Amino acid sequence: MQYFPAALERLTEEFGKLPGVGSKTAQRLAFHVLSLPDEDAAGFAEAILEAKRSVKTCPVCQNLTDQKLCPLCADDRRDHSLVCVVAEPRDVIAMERAREYSGVYHVLHGVISPLNHMGPDDIRVRELLSRVAQGTVREVIMATNPDTEGEATAMYISRLLRPMEIKVTRLAYGIPVGSQLEYADEVTLLRALEGRREI
Amino acid sequence: MQYFPAALERLTEEFGKLPGVGSKTAQRLAFHVLSLPDEDAAGFAEAILEAKRSVKTCPVCQNLTDQKLCPLCADDRRDHSLVCVVAEPRDVIAMERAREYSGVYHVLHGVISPLNHMGPDDIRVRELLSRVAQGTVREVIMATNPDTEGEATAMYISRLLRPMEIKVTRLAYGIPVGSQLEYADEVTLLRALEGRREI
Repeated sequence: MQYFPAALERLTEEFGKLPGVGSKTAQRLAFHVLSLPDEDAAGFAEAILEAKRSVKTCPVCQNLTDQKLCPLCADDRRDHSLVCVVAEPRDVIAMERAREYSGVYHVLHGVISPLNHMGPDDIRVRELLSRVAQGTVREVIMATNPDTEGEATAMYISRLLRPMEIKVTRLAYGIPVGSQLEYADEVTLLRALEGRREI
Repeated sequence: MQYFPAALERLTEEFGKLPGVGSKTAQRLAFHVLSLPDEDAAGFAEAILEAKRSVKTCPVCQNLTDQKLCPLCADDRRDHSLVCVVAEPRDVIAMERAREYSGVYHVLHGVISPLNHMGPDDIRVRELLSRVAQGTVREVIMATNPDTEGEATAMYISRLLRPMEIKVTRLAYGIPVGSQLEYADEVTLLRALEGRREI
């Protein structure tokens, strides 16, 4: 016997499809939506549709935007010959927070990850190559995460870029500022030692 | 500077309003929705609207339904003179799972909770009283949760029902079946002792 109305079951099911949302949480969220005023629920539904409708990727850097070009690619004051390659749109925000980088970006929308069935063709590698092939890029900074998949992706892309005769660099590894030496893992310490600089 | 398109920010904000969803999770969910095929995102939005549109409360027991009467109230084989009072629609399902109860329900949609600004008028107490006043109800079983607020709500309602000359009962307290005595708290053990029965 079905105790809940079909529409409620369906809404629960929809919430359950979201990443990290189990069946109990999905039910709680569905009940919450039912308890909302009509206009709030309608606003939520409209936000979903509007986001899908208006958000596209920038044809140059592949970052999310609702303009023809994203604000960063459209900014003349930035150095368009310097391209920082990141895995996700949120990594652009992290870089911008440092207020130091004046180049532009390239968002891969993922990393190469055989376990998750993500190959080179599933991320925006081809777009990067054709962008570099246009000849205006001087340096590509690989800024994927310093984990196995991020490393592998950076290595893969840098190998493809090598014949194009541009500078390809990688963000420095080392001990994070504000952290304590005793908590740093060995690999980080090793990398910090390798990358030591004169002061 | 705004790095993300406005529609994406708005969707993130909408997800952030859901209970238990923080800003990081909200962003992750918004990105997930963007990555969905158009028809899946539209299906999600439609599920929200459809649930709000079609799900109402049963005029008799206040449980959620998309019919005129909920399936339990419409069922002639059930004992309509026996009413089990629960806090939430999901509690009806919990009771039904026991496959023993043959009466009907009354869903309060909350409990009295001064801390959460929930008074007696914010839950469906009045509906219960007018239902009992019609004279067809023989017994009301209070089945709110055995916590402070559930207890207080059960006490409050039973006091209102007392002048109506019907039987008002409360679910038995005791040690849960399948649990271990050594993990039972003192209050539960005390209640189990008080409620002991001959075998």
